[in-house]
Amino acid sequence: MSIKIKGITTPPSIDELSDRLERVRNKMVEENLDYYVSFDPVNIYYLTNFANNVHERPFILIIEREGIPKMVVPLLEKSHVESRALGELEFHSYYEFPAPQGQNWYDIYRSLFEKDKIVGIEAAMPSGIAEKTPGTKVITDIIEEIRIIKSDYEVGRCVHACKIVNKGHKELLKMCKPGMHEFALYQKITGSMTSKIIMDIPDANFIVCKTVAAVWPPSFSHDPHIIPKIFAEMEEGGPHVSIVSAQVDGYGVELERTFFLGHVPEKVKEPFEVMFHARELAYNLLKPGTLMSEIDHKVRKFITDKGYGDYIIHRTGHGLGITGHEAPYLAEGYDKPLEPNMLISIEPGIYIPGIGGFRHSDSVLITNDGYIKLTKAPENIEDLTLNISN
Amino acid sequence: MSIKIKGITTPPSIDELSDRLERVRNKMVEENLDYYVSFDPVNIYYLTNFANNVHERPFILIIEREGIPKMVVPLLEKSHVESRALGELEFHSYYEFPAPQGQNWYDIYRSLFEKDKIVGIEAAMPSGIAEKTPGTKVITDIIEEIRIIKSDYEVGRCVHACKIVNKGHKELLKMCKPGMHEFALYQKITGSMTSKIIMDIPDANFIVCKTVAAVWPPSFSHDPHIIPKIFAEMEEGGPHVSIVSAQVDGYGVELERTFFLGHVPEKVKEPFEVMFHARELAYNLLKPGTLMSEIDHKVRKFITDKGYGDYIIHRTGHGLGITGHEAPYLAEGYDKPLEPNMLISIEPGIYIPGIGGFRHSDSVLITNDGYIKLTKAPENIEDLTLNISN
Repeated sequence: MSIKIKGITTPPSIDELSDRLERVRNKMVEENLDYYVSFDPVNIYYLTNFANNVHERPFILIIEREGIPKMVVPLLEKSHVESRALGELEFHSYYEFPAPQGQNWYDIYRSLFEKDKIVGIEAAMPSGIAEKTPGTKVITDIIEEIRIIKSDYEVGRCVHACKIVNKGHKELLKMCKPGMHEFALYQKITGSMTSKIIMDIPDANFIVCKTVAAVWPPSFSHDPHIIPKIFAEMEEGGPHVSIVSAQVDGYGVELERTFFLGHVPEKVKEPFEVMFHARELAYNLLKPGTLMSEIDHKVRKFITDKGYGDYIIHRTGHGLGITGHEAPYLAEGYDKPLEPNMLISIEPGIYIPGIGGFRHSDSVLITNDGYIKLTKAPENIEDLTLNISN
Repeated sequence: MSIKIKGITTPPSIDELSDRLERVRNKMVEENLDYYVSFDPVNIYYLTNFANNVHERPFILIIEREGIPKMVVPLLEKSHVESRALGELEFHSYYEFPAPQGQNWYDIYRSLFEKDKIVGIEAAMPSGIAEKTPGTKVITDIIEEIRIIKSDYEVGRCVHACKIVNKGHKELLKMCKPGMHEFALYQKITGSMTSKIIMDIPDANFIVCKTVAAVWPPSFSHDPHIIPKIFAEMEEGGPHVSIVSAQVDGYGVELERTFFLGHVPEKVKEPFEVMFHARELAYNLLKPGTLMSEIDHKVRKFITDKGYGDYIIHRTGHGLGITGHEAPYLAEGYDKPLEPNMLISIEPGIYIPGIGGFRHSDSVLITNDGYIKLTKAPENIEDLTLNISN
């Protein structure tokens, strides 16, 4: 757990991208596919380094078992794609969306397939694009699946992204005091993280950069996916729940803590302890071979046995990588084993209306014999009870 | 063109949302659909006022010809949805993504349909969700279609959003000078627009707020969809192209200008004039009844006749509303007539590698007998040649 991994801030090498493509093609052979078509901008970014601002004009990547992948792009974006995409790609541009008859995206797109082939498509592919795809279609998330195991390069990128959120979270805790407005905190910490991203990666692609820094005060913290009102104020006591996350030039991680201002109200000590030990239980199970469903099941059982089962509203964790939320999932029903070089969040939570939310989240790398926690912030209740006397 | 429309900053009334739903249902009857299913977060927001941060857990809205619409939501988001959604909705929550057998989103989802019915789905619906949808599926974009004609309420919201970008653009032009960094400008102007949004709408939903302020300096301006590098600097001369856009608590508009610092280089005068007159031509055609394809065709022909046809890379305009890019499209191939209460951009462009880009864009309302330009900024080359001697 104490090994240091060096952060990486450079773009992927051509070899890195070729390896990713090769892994996709190996899956295509396994699944007997002649073509695989990717529309999901995340998957296209993974394979080409090109990130698009999604709008109504489609970008579509067509992969055959051999040869240069083909990319259907709007004429408008041709030079943008060429300036950011890495690796060999054959571009096929279309007139506009919509376009005169015979020059629409689907006219170009359909002409790139041979007849009567087996074509893999993503579950995320819009029905309107699937409808225009020729051949026998099979829904299969090959790219999402290969993204589950990170290369050493991807791990390095995420290690660097963790440095950004670690710094952001440290600054966030320093700002917290009763009466602090959500908006002031958001502006200050996201600005600081963005500045660090730019200093570390001057050529960062801002389409795939995002920073979030927020605190759910006690009156909101039982509802983890609501957005706190802009003038919501922090209060003495707690539980407050922080979220600091960043997508740093394409690589996303998170760091979250339950904390208190000045003192810990008596009634929240027990749910905090239950969350704290549920989390310990999860960490003790983190090693290659453990089923992810089993971890979630045991965590839920532990919390339920302590009397808080009605207050569980989400799984124990999720994958991280080029998004901040992706497979694998530490969830009942996801019966796959942990493997080295998976990158996941660990974040069992308890949410009690009228009292508040209890959740720590870290970004964690699975190693050959256990795990390394890549994010860093105080964890126990004493260190998370902030002094407000100054 | 000089009528003043009052901006609106309040949430939609229940009547407004009921009217939208009724229009969807009228289309369902016309198209002989028993159900219509919406997955597109934009369409769900349009009908329910609930905006979701898209992630792997699906939110799905099921509309029948009568009765209360049903919404499938993750348990995690139940209280979030309930706090933001307006109008009558019946919520059906699922355990988690993924979930133990029998408790997945699709188990809940499929149980809400009667057998052997005709089900309309959006072109944007992911194939993985379409696959789990029972009945006879028909791809039809009913909600996107009814969104094309704005209610007076929507127009009022967009009028307010235009005030935000008008102010932002005015401040942007004041900051521009040779050597100004992209990043400094972005930070200042988006901060200023965000502050105004918060002052005007303290309860704004930040999931549907976004502000953009950027200038494409001459070395980038030929490529309208590239993101300028963060340390890109403005230069004496031009053409620079500004983009100021905002989604203001759910309503999106844009304002863009081609401008010069200090002087206008000789070689750019002609393409500027051609763009300027192409734009005039487009405005002269703006009234109910004109085919949108015809406008684009005439604009392209005008530019081509002037010798710049090779430098057209996009259509003349697109719709605006709860997104900044939506139907209708002023594009060859889109053979529908303009109608009152359409809200569109007018932005013919010319993009010459090595010289730069030429484009003004405004957000424009079609009225009973013509149009009203809702955005406001200098338009002619004299007013857009900024003094840099101070």
